Amino acid sequence: MVSRDEMIALDRGDALAPMRDKFDLPDGIIYLDGNSLGPLPRHVPARLAEVIGEQWRNDLIKSWNIHGWMQMPQTVGDRIAPLIGAGPGEVLAGDSTTVNLFKLMAAALEQRPGRKVIVSQSGNFPTDNYLAEGLIRFSGGEHELRLVDGDDVTGAIDDGVALVSLTQVDYRSGYVQDLAAVTKAAHEAGALMLWDLSHSAGALEVDLHGADADFAVGCSYKYLNGGPGAPAYLFVAKRLQDQVSQPLTGWMGHAAPFAFEQSYRPAPGITRQRSGTPSILAMSALNAALDLFDGLDLGLVRRKSLSLTEHFIQLMEQRCGRFGFALASPREQVRRGSQVSWRHQQGFAISRALVAQGVIGDFRAPDIMRFGFAPLFVRHVDVWDAVEAIEKLMTSGGWDRPEFHQAAAVT
Amino acid sequence: MVSRDEMIALDRGDALAPMRDKFDLPDGIIYLDGNSLGPLPRHVPARLAEVIGEQWRNDLIKSWNIHGWMQMPQTVGDRIAPLIGAGPGEVLAGDSTTVNLFKLMAAALEQRPGRKVIVSQSGNFPTDNYLAEGLIRFSGGEHELRLVDGDDVTGAIDDGVALVSLTQVDYRSGYVQDLAAVTKAAHEAGALMLWDLSHSAGALEVDLHGADADFAVGCSYKYLNGGPGAPAYLFVAKRLQDQVSQPLTGWMGHAAPFAFEQSYRPAPGITRQRSGTPSILAMSALNAALDLFDGLDLGLVRRKSLSLTEHFIQLMEQRCGRFGFALASPREQVRRGSQVSWRHQQGFAISRALVAQGVIGDFRAPDIMRFGFAPLFVRHVDVWDAVEAIEKLMTSGGWDRPEFHQAAAVT
Repeated sequence: MVSRDEMIALDRGDALAPMRDKFDLPDGIIYLDGNSLGPLPRHVPARLAEVIGEQWRNDLIKSWNIHGWMQMPQTVGDRIAPLIGAGPGEVLAGDSTTVNLFKLMAAALEQRPGRKVIVSQSGNFPTDNYLAEGLIRFSGGEHELRLVDGDDVTGAIDDGVALVSLTQVDYRSGYVQDLAAVTKAAHEAGALMLWDLSHSAGALEVDLHGADADFAVGCSYKYLNGGPGAPAYLFVAKRLQDQVSQPLTGWMGHAAPFAFEQSYRPAPGITRQRSGTPSILAMSALNAALDLFDGLDLGLVRRKSLSLTEHFIQLMEQRCGRFGFALASPREQVRRGSQVSWRHQQGFAISRALVAQGVIGDFRAPDIMRFGFAPLFVRHVDVWDAVEAIEKLMTSGGWDRPEFHQAAAVT
Repeated sequence: MVSRDEMIALDRGDALAPMRDKFDLPDGIIYLDGNSLGPLPRHVPARLAEVIGEQWRNDLIKSWNIHGWMQMPQTVGDRIAPLIGAGPGEVLAGDSTTVNLFKLMAAALEQRPGRKVIVSQSGNFPTDNYLAEGLIRFSGGEHELRLVDGDDVTGAIDDGVALVSLTQVDYRSGYVQDLAAVTKAAHEAGALMLWDLSHSAGALEVDLHGADADFAVGCSYKYLNGGPGAPAYLFVAKRLQDQVSQPLTGWMGHAAPFAFEQSYRPAPGITRQRSGTPSILAMSALNAALDLFDGLDLGLVRRKSLSLTEHFIQLMEQRCGRFGFALASPREQVRRGSQVSWRHQQGFAISRALVAQGVIGDFRAPDIMRFGFAPLFVRHVDVWDAVEAIEKLMTSGGWDRPEFHQAAAVT
């Protein structure tokens, strides 16, 4: 069994260790929820204060031009692109993941007019499937949402399928889909492929180009640390950009927004995916947060992530195996994202008791305890200390108190 | 002709005068573009710093519950409600005006299945009509967008009309639609009514209840001073809320978002209009900015606005009448918003030369110079000084220089 000192030694040899100090982390907690809300990067408040005090305050309306506000969805998108294996001009920041899913799902269905099926997983993040339902309903009800149980969806892709819509890393189990293989299966059946990268970008290497993916979306408030509810992003492969339309045809996606033409005329390239006016404050916080990824080796990030999750699984099994935790994440490293989940009948109360002790993970109904290992700031020693805390809690029975069983809004 | 001293005296007697100091305005400019981007309220940076430093930084993921982040679209919406004549639970903040238009237009068409026409104005703000085009295209192409030239739309509303979609205050001319009369005409024909309040809320009294309006949207970065690209808002009348659907069915609009149910089940009330995760930073800046309207008498705001625009029109005609400016805004006060526009063949160059001298208005193609009079910070003396600057510029011919004629991106 690995000792605490051995974990500290691993941290000492960690090339990513200096990244931790770039975050302004509160004392006394072990934050294993960066997969839900990334912590505050130290430099973000000053950068945002500058945007407010120097740009909005001083230059007012002129800032749209002189400070590049007008182009921010594209310029911030270009900074996300290398994190997901996309090229310049292929990624646009803005709106929410939900809105972006709607745009791209609608675009995909229009590209495959004869086909009436969207394939997804029953375990996909709910908003992805709810959105597909909404789209189907409002586009005439002729399409079908085909939901696959389990992680293998390729068997459900036939030549009636217009779109395969999947999240690369499952929000509950952390299961990692084979981006290239599933995209290939979709293409071989003549379908288009849409990936939701919300739980992957920034924590593992994503290669949209290598997989020849068509569409992708993602949020930036998890591993990208853009702040609560930060702008989402969308990707459209270069080869598709000028042939696709999307329904949210606002003025910012017009070829000449300030010509105020009578009819909509889509801008070339990724710009036609724009809709309304983006929040510059939210976009600026994200833009600053992305500095952390400048020059960062994502291979290194992935290796550290796997080292953290591997040690967590082993230590949990060694020290807490007798308490009824069932691993709900893949044991196989290549299929495991940057989180580890455990099923436990009392998961809700245990999760809340841990939060009260400063070990912040989260809970997903009905019985999943989820621990995220954001490699930029979580240390090996945090893994050791978290397992120590869990073992103590389970031994003491300290989770079994009324205050931890009370229902509460859970995020 | 009114003198500068008389204008200063008017400011001295202005009950709203103390509001100006609540804004952090740069020295040396006269800002007549608050109708495009409101200036920075003094207290916003500290409030936003607190949200970042105390909430995001310290309480991380827990902030969604303990700091009310989860409910912000509703709580911020409730603060906008009294500014537009709506009640609690009728307004939701979030997304962009464009996205909100899409939701409500789609909702309206579904409510009137036998009717195939949307009525709007050819001069409506482009995004409103572009959006209608996008919606029609993606919902099967069976609807028609009927665009009326001019300001009187009632003649175009017949019993084939599903929805009348108008901006209350025209973005170019500042023409104010008769909210109650047009809504009544729409209802008498069996149509629904959607108002875009982007150029009215915060500058004049809007009474959605009094007009019995069905739907409304608006942006908050103009007279509401929420910051560049601040969250928009939408209104659905209580009586319609539980019978309407909208297509952007994201998890935040679900009756139980954290139950992660398989299928979408709309939340009751206004909450079903939510889609994805809102930007808490953008929402918090808006929330702080709205403090300025607490307890403010909007009747007073409207009266000051009319005094400013009336003086501006008179002074311009008296002092600059010989330079070829043609009034493009209503002379009749009840039909005039909080802006005054002039047509001039050289409007672009004149507008840019004025900006260079610190008189910030804006330009709208092809020939409209637009001056906004946000009553919370613009003074009567600013009106006088602006006209003085325009007269001097026109007398000197100082606008006729190459640098002012160069095409530039215009916002």
